Amino acid sequence: MLEAIFAPRSIAVVGASPDPTKLGHRILKNILDAGYPGRIFPVHPGASHILGFPAYPSVEQVPEPVDLAVIVVPATVVPNVAEACGRAGVKGLVVISAGFKEVGPEGRALEMQLLEIVQRYGMRMIGPNCLGIIDTITRLNASFAALYPHPGQIAFMSQSGALCTAILDWSKAQGIGFSRFVSLGNKADVDEVTLLEAWGCDQANNRVILAYLEGIGNGDAFVAVARRVTKRIPVIAIKSGATQAGARAASSHTGALAGAEHACEAAFDQSGVLRARSMQELFDFAMAFAYQPLIPGNRLAIVTNAGGPGIIATDAAERIGLHLAELTPATMAALRAALPSTASVSNPIDIIGDARPDRYRVALRAALDDPYVDAVLVLFTPQAVSKPEDVARTIVEVAAGSAKPVVTSFMGAATIGEALRILNDHRIPNYAFPERAIAALGAMVAQRHWVERPPEEYVRFDVDAERVRALFTRVCSEGRVELGELEAREVIEAYGMRLPKSLLAQSPEEAAEIAARLGFPVVMKISSPDILHKSDIGGVKLGIGDSAAARDAYELIEYRARKYSREARIWGVLVQEQVRKGREVLVGVSRDPQFGPLIAFGLGGIYVEALRDVAFRLAPVSRQEAAEQVRAIRAFPLLRGVRGEPPADIAAAEEVILRVSQLVTDFPEIVEMDINPLVVYNRGEGATVLDARIILRG
Amino acid sequence: MLEAIFAPRSIAVVGASPDPTKLGHRILKNILDAGYPGRIFPVHPGASHILGFPAYPSVEQVPEPVDLAVIVVPATVVPNVAEACGRAGVKGLVVISAGFKEVGPEGRALEMQLLEIVQRYGMRMIGPNCLGIIDTITRLNASFAALYPHPGQIAFMSQSGALCTAILDWSKAQGIGFSRFVSLGNKADVDEVTLLEAWGCDQANNRVILAYLEGIGNGDAFVAVARRVTKRIPVIAIKSGATQAGARAASSHTGALAGAEHACEAAFDQSGVLRARSMQELFDFAMAFAYQPLIPGNRLAIVTNAGGPGIIATDAAERIGLHLAELTPATMAALRAALPSTASVSNPIDIIGDARPDRYRVALRAALDDPYVDAVLVLFTPQAVSKPEDVARTIVEVAAGSAKPVVTSFMGAATIGEALRILNDHRIPNYAFPERAIAALGAMVAQRHWVERPPEEYVRFDVDAERVRALFTRVCSEGRVELGELEAREVIEAYGMRLPKSLLAQSPEEAAEIAARLGFPVVMKISSPDILHKSDIGGVKLGIGDSAAARDAYELIEYRARKYSREARIWGVLVQEQVRKGREVLVGVSRDPQFGPLIAFGLGGIYVEALRDVAFRLAPVSRQEAAEQVRAIRAFPLLRGVRGEPPADIAAAEEVILRVSQLVTDFPEIVEMDINPLVVYNRGEGATVLDARIILRG
Repeated sequence: MLEAIFAPRSIAVVGASPDPTKLGHRILKNILDAGYPGRIFPVHPGASHILGFPAYPSVEQVPEPVDLAVIVVPATVVPNVAEACGRAGVKGLVVISAGFKEVGPEGRALEMQLLEIVQRYGMRMIGPNCLGIIDTITRLNASFAALYPHPGQIAFMSQSGALCTAILDWSKAQGIGFSRFVSLGNKADVDEVTLLEAWGCDQANNRVILAYLEGIGNGDAFVAVARRVTKRIPVIAIKSGATQAGARAASSHTGALAGAEHACEAAFDQSGVLRARSMQELFDFAMAFAYQPLIPGNRLAIVTNAGGPGIIATDAAERIGLHLAELTPATMAALRAALPSTASVSNPIDIIGDARPDRYRVALRAALDDPYVDAVLVLFTPQAVSKPEDVARTIVEVAAGSAKPVVTSFMGAATIGEALRILNDHRIPNYAFPERAIAALGAMVAQRHWVERPPEEYVRFDVDAERVRALFTRVCSEGRVELGELEAREVIEAYGMRLPKSLLAQSPEEAAEIAARLGFPVVMKISSPDILHKSDIGGVKLGIGDSAAARDAYELIEYRARKYSREARIWGVLVQEQVRKGREVLVGVSRDPQFGPLIAFGLGGIYVEALRDVAFRLAPVSRQEAAEQVRAIRAFPLLRGVRGEPPADIAAAEEVILRVSQLVTDFPEIVEMDINPLVVYNRGEGATVLDARIILRG
Repeated sequence: MLEAIFAPRSIAVVGASPDPTKLGHRILKNILDAGYPGRIFPVHPGASHILGFPAYPSVEQVPEPVDLAVIVVPATVVPNVAEACGRAGVKGLVVISAGFKEVGPEGRALEMQLLEIVQRYGMRMIGPNCLGIIDTITRLNASFAALYPHPGQIAFMSQSGALCTAILDWSKAQGIGFSRFVSLGNKADVDEVTLLEAWGCDQANNRVILAYLEGIGNGDAFVAVARRVTKRIPVIAIKSGATQAGARAASSHTGALAGAEHACEAAFDQSGVLRARSMQELFDFAMAFAYQPLIPGNRLAIVTNAGGPGIIATDAAERIGLHLAELTPATMAALRAALPSTASVSNPIDIIGDARPDRYRVALRAALDDPYVDAVLVLFTPQAVSKPEDVARTIVEVAAGSAKPVVTSFMGAATIGEALRILNDHRIPNYAFPERAIAALGAMVAQRHWVERPPEEYVRFDVDAERVRALFTRVCSEGRVELGELEAREVIEAYGMRLPKSLLAQSPEEAAEIAARLGFPVVMKISSPDILHKSDIGGVKLGIGDSAAARDAYELIEYRARKYSREARIWGVLVQEQVRKGREVLVGVSRDPQFGPLIAFGLGGIYVEALRDVAFRLAPVSRQEAAEQVRAIRAFPLLRGVRGEPPADIAAAEEVILRVSQLVTDFPEIVEMDINPLVVYNRGEGATVLDARIILRG
């Protein structure tokens, strides 16, 4: 995949220039300087040679097949060039030129035209409006970046070209190497999904994939591809600039709670993409994955020559759920035999300030040999007795070939430069402060959990989809988008969720009669497609105990609905059996423009809005994801039961999530939905939908 | 204060050695090398000269007055040396020697002996068991650190000596300078409080004070001193190693929720100490305070030559509550006139990748001149057109003398070294990534808010403390620590909090009679000093509607209590008016061993434990702090009123916090207390204590 772009046998640079101040010259020179081994053809209208290469007036006149064309000509000319490339059998394009979508409607049209040409000829294209691409395996630098990175096993894609230059500059000094380095530009053709898929097939060269993304075009594809790739190669992303696109006016609870940020978070979570909170973290995590084996578990040993940093690391570890390993008696005995009596032989292993490399050797070896240790963090503070570079060399020796990751935090800077170089050269990730090392190990543990997670189980319940389809067609044909309560009940029922018994009354007398049939007490509610929050207008009455009360309630509810809106269509008043008390939760759905249906779960009633204690998952939701979603809210102990209360029927709540997931996956026209409250009874007793709202696409 | 230690006119080094491998030699040499201008007297039993200075066999034989003695002799000898110093009129000691409290009981005794000597002679002492001290104003390096820091305006104290060496090493390479640098050691005499107080008086030299602390000895004094100092000088601390000391077994809700971590957090919050979450952050924040004027408000402008980093910075700013300034039309016009049409003249100001220094000049000046901008973050990514050092020089020029802080994020490393030096030399803090710059500005905003906060208002209510004192005396004399419900009610009443009417019944008949008097329905509860969680044993009955039910309830409750424990003392059954429904909250107290009484506020009932949504403040609590505490819980919207509900009587809840604060301040013997629930009615209707537990010191 994308070989024509990353491993072309020949390259044409269209817009190559003899003028050294021009980008077209710079790019040609970059290709040359990086040592690209294939054929290079400058294309220029007049020049006969550029940088020693014979130049051609057009791609079509190049006498040999061209795999990749790098295009750096004015935007308006680009479609013609692409057309010529297509005719000449070029397979890949990197379009550096700007002046497309990013400059407005005309540019957008030009970009559409360009994409059409690319697709017509079956080419693939990076850009337009990008810095270019670098592949250190091919030794290809088809970019105008000022620096060529060290070779390495980190693949990096960025939606910001400037960030690329900054990262190259920074990584060069840090000794961080890359396999591929791509500026995505406008992502007209090749986007983050294409690259993920392509890079995901090359585990040998890409040990970790990094992405800086400002927007994700095709959320579904992203999740689907990322889910597969992340099982093989860790993917770490920064997603910035949560756009306002997702934050459209929302009338339901769930709509108001959800937002682009939650959808993106859920997408990353469900597809195993690790999210970095800062650029620093992105590379801190990357180093650990690129240099070290994946952590086998979450039990950490710390070796340190100073108490303070050991405490700092321990605190940081506990904060993110890394456990300090309990060392075996054998390990402690080995340490005790070799270390001075003032040393601490339990974890953190404190080898004391006067430690020379030999103590580091003993302690690191003992820790790595301990079967209950999964990873070791080695801390070093400069002390008079020990040369940092000797300690570094010792760590490199002992760690070599270990199946457990070893990371270090050599603290300082002035006197440890040589030590840092030794560590980096031997693929030991070093972090200036212990907290950063801990965070990187934490990311490794998350990746480990993801890799070991059993395959997702998707269930399909036996439901009556036809009934729902017919109902939606009818609602649509009436020009409505919001379902009435009776209609919503019908949908809920068709998808196998339990409802309280309920009938529509259209007069006070009928209400009394139905209530008597259902058995007192009953609940009565206004039934109108135009009244959304029924209780806000006094349209809901609880605990109606006899026939007279039912008649009164009918009249009062109808009066209030009329007062609220003369225009509202009133279908009558719903009389419902009053359900037993249980724990009230909410299951809701909103639709994210990028990632599709987003399912919310939280405490119901007024708590959902006040506490904003809601967990989100994208549909379709797997069995495990539903279980995790229910457990992800802070208030989960209320469902598990506190202070001697019996546990709630958590399985029933999970099943409602799964049925709702199936419903909104079957019917993409559902844009918002609230089940609030869902009353969850004690374990084994199920859950009942008390109220549901469904809104279809307008 | 502490002049004898930080600005001594003369120094004796007791344990100075002619042997260059000895610490005593190293320290003397460090004093010499740093250029200390006062008199230096090595003390050594045999040598006549060390490093060219005449040596003396004891401090007492030094022919001139000695202000400071640096002691580096075996621990067992230290008391004798200190005694000699006292006799010789020495005023300050820095005891480097280890072998005291940190090695066990014998060392602890030795340390007590040493402290007694120090106090008897009115000396002050740093250490023992420390790296020493550095004062760049005096040019004093009384430490065995391998490096002497750049002079600067950051004062640093650390409870870890190794961390001192690491920080010195690191800061040297970063160009970060210090005014004072102290290894606290065992803090036998001078501790964090002493240093805070001393450094807080020298604003000219200490623009910011940093502390790495593992424990705080005297919490009360720390809070009192920090409160004053932080109004003048920002204090940033890392507190690590939350000890288990505070996490003693706790039987009450509040005890289980509180912990050393919460107490420390509250202490820092209430005293204006900024807490850094990592070593990196500690110095990131310090640079901003040391180099730049305090931010006047929270409106930020961003100037960038690249879109991506601008978005990253914007995201980070929004996440921590920094506002992106709305630029005035005049500012935007000025920018439009000077920048190319592709530039963005609204905030973030994007001066585009081909920006040379002139555009940085225009944009930074315009942003600083805008009256609605409080601070400017300048972002730079390396681009072919601009030399980083020219951009740096331009920023330095424009920012010079500005009353608004300017910080930068020059991203990269390989090509920007010279630019970073220029920025650092001219006191522009630079951060490798934009998120760190934003975090530092956020710390500045927090400091600004703290400085501008009006003085705390402490109220004292008119209460009946005598009645409580008498009651506690009685409880104590009976050998009890837990108050019975009636006793707790008495305390609550004496401190002016409202209770439901309630009387103790000692027979079924009496219960029926009392209930009739109070008016049905009533609540009945077991009254026993030995039954803590009454409802857990079925010892509480609600909604008792008539005399027969009251009689039945009495018998049932008594039966259950007996079944629960034959030994429990049962005083009877409390009959209580059933109070109206309201919003239930908890006000609780636990006592932190370091910081004293810690007041908890949260939602009451089962929510307090399940959601752990609790805010803590140390007593005494001021009016503002009580108001903030109530608003600090996530569930505060439930009190303010959601979905058309009227607001609760928040003022009444605050008043209960203040009265409880007064109570636990008046009576240090209260170690735990729960008011749960406190029923808060609608605004203007007050709040009622439904249940209270009080536990005294055993």
